[in-house]
Amino acid sequence: MGMPLELNTMIVTKGRETRVEENLFILKKEGYRLYPIEIPIEVRKTMDSDSSGTALIKKVEWQHSSTTLTYQLISLNSTN
Amino acid sequence: MGMPLELNTMIVTKGRETRVEENLFILKKEGYRLYPIEIPIEVRKTMDSDSSGTALIKKVEWQHSSTTLTYQLISLNSTN
Amino acid sequence: MGMPLELNTMIVTKGRETRVEENLFILKKEGYRLYPIEIPIEVRKTMDSDSSGTALIKKVEWQHSSTTLTYQLISLNSTN
Amino acid sequence: MGMPLELNTMIVTKGRETRVEENLFILKKEGYRLYPIEIPIEVRKTMDSDSSGTALIKKVEWQHSSTTLTYQLISLNSTN
Repeated sequence: MGMPLELNTMIVTKGRETRVEENLFILKKEGYRLYPIEIPIEVRKTMDSDSSGTALIKKVEWQHSSTTLTYQLISLNSTN
Repeated sequence: MGMPLELNTMIVTKGRETRVEENLFILKKEGYRLYPIEIPIEVRKTMDSDSSGTALIKKVEWQHSSTTLTYQLISLNSTN
Repeated sequence: MGMPLELNTMIVTKGRETRVEENLFILKKEGYRLYPIEIPIEVRKTMDSDSSGTALIKKVEWQHSSTTLTYQLISLNSTN
Repeated sequence: MGMPLELNTMIVTKGRETRVEENLFILKKEGYRLYPIEIPIEVRKTMDSDSSGTALIKKVEWQHSSTTLTYQLISLNSTN
């Protein structure tokens, strides 16, 4: 009867994000996930990689057992 | 730094729902609200009114400090 | 990296509750579960049984991958 | 009818933590707050201060409109 959720404290992209505008990205994840919205949150490529930057989640959408995030990258960690 | 949320266990429409299709409605509520999705949930007109039916929430959207629900009415309590 | 949670909108006891005081019960459930606290919530023996009453959850405790509820029964559905 | 919650992604102690054992602390916060449990989480003294370390929350308790955390400090940022 319960609804499975996953509480997330960072965005792990796995390289599956889509750029919508200059700093705005869309990312679809499996399952219903709870993310803090409009609060700075770390972005990583994989769970174990270094932080690739910081984002603000602008929109969260739950439907059909998946979560779609729209996030704005507000800072980028360069790694040259 | 925290994100305010409200956990909701029923849909209170206050008569502000919009019918999209036969049994499908859209309702926009203030703030970020957590609702169970794809689980039968009671629908009421006001917090203190009797149940007006049961619905399945099909979609939850958080953006701009508001929550937009798309729900399907699966049973109706007639009161005549 | 995420934390699995389950959003619950009713208490399903499976007969495993322990009475602490007259109307006060303790129930331990597997996993981390999110319940509304201090809000009337339905109590059932099994997921498919009729409602056995209404309770107020007074305390929620998460530890060691389990959730311990302390709830006060505020009304009882007699079924004789 | 809803239950106000706050989703938190770091521990802000405001110096109010109590040491229980060597690396184990208890901290009581106002309101019902949702924290990730058993997942590394940043610890800060104030919202705007630098990170003072990383912790694992071992126990979360909701009661009487407050949240009590038991957390284990797993790394410390020295700042001398």
